[in-house]
Amino acid sequence: MTQRPNSIEFSPIGVIKTPYGERAPYQPIDDDPGSFRIELFPSHQNGLVQLERFRYIYVLYHVHKASGTSSLLVEPPWTAGTTVGIFASRSPRRPNRLGLSVVRLKRIEKNVLYTSGLDVFDGTPLLDIKPYIQDLDAKPDANHGWLEDIGNRDHLMLHIKGIPHDY
Amino acid sequence: MTQRPNSIEFSPIGVIKTPYGERAPYQPIDDDPGSFRIELFPSHQNGLVQLERFRYIYVLYHVHKASGTSSLLVEPPWTAGTTVGIFASRSPRRPNRLGLSVVRLKRIEKNVLYTSGLDVFDGTPLLDIKPYIQDLDAKPDANHGWLEDIGNRDHLMLHIKGIPHDY
Repeated sequence: MTQRPNSIEFSPIGVIKTPYGERAPYQPIDDDPGSFRIELFPSHQNGLVQLERFRYIYVLYHVHKASGTSSLLVEPPWTAGTTVGIFASRSPRRPNRLGLSVVRLKRIEKNVLYTSGLDVFDGTPLLDIKPYIQDLDAKPDANHGWLEDIGNRDHLMLHIKGIPHDY
Repeated sequence: MTQRPNSIEFSPIGVIKTPYGERAPYQPIDDDPGSFRIELFPSHQNGLVQLERFRYIYVLYHVHKASGTSSLLVEPPWTAGTTVGIFASRSPRRPNRLGLSVVRLKRIEKNVLYTSGLDVFDGTPLLDIKPYIQDLDAKPDANHGWLEDIGNRDHLMLHIKGIPHDY
């Protein structure tokens, strides 16, 4: 395999474990303790010192199983034909298949982080963990962009978040 | 150059332009229009459709000029000796030198995004842009983790954010 020009190389630092062996974004989240966890390689365990003090963390990962070729325009599911640019979406089929999620950090045991639900495949390669810092990252005046056009946005968000619901 | 085992390759999709030719984290932010902008490669311009609807965006980049070797324990500046794990910090000297910032999107002109201040070097390679979505990303109950131990946290945040101040 040859390198692309100007390519930037990263190496996995761990693995994300979820109940999603196949893509199953609509299935109810199994929120049993331990269903969602991040297994940092033991060699990196010291990097977790003091992380448990944070309520939320950013998880960055390689969307390694995203299927299909990437396109600059996407039609997100549930939006009935709305077409938006890939950078205006969270679709995994991006030019660089970098995934980003904000999750609740429940606890850390040695090199394993137990978190709230993470809508990624089991075995997803972990690239980085960063603390989510209230003053830097929580923007109370953030909006929903083009999602505000969607009539049933509240319903849509249940899908986007993977929250089970009956309607 | 040989690839590392299991390495993941990404390619820059643009360049971040800032007034910071040398590392200058304490200098006042020049917030003139145009001081901070993201120049997406023109080939990717279609990926920006509908992005301008969002008030905030995530910017992901390669911290290409971070000096020194990465360590799993870091002593952030201004914290007078507090040692924390690299994953509990936003230090750029990480195992994978992936940077993440939340910025205000001011406007888009063709392939150029004008944003609020970005504390990165001029010329930083852009890897991805994602919309910051209120319901997914704004966590009103987020905390400050170990930063809450710092007596002058409000002051510290001015430094972390790069906001000019006289005290």
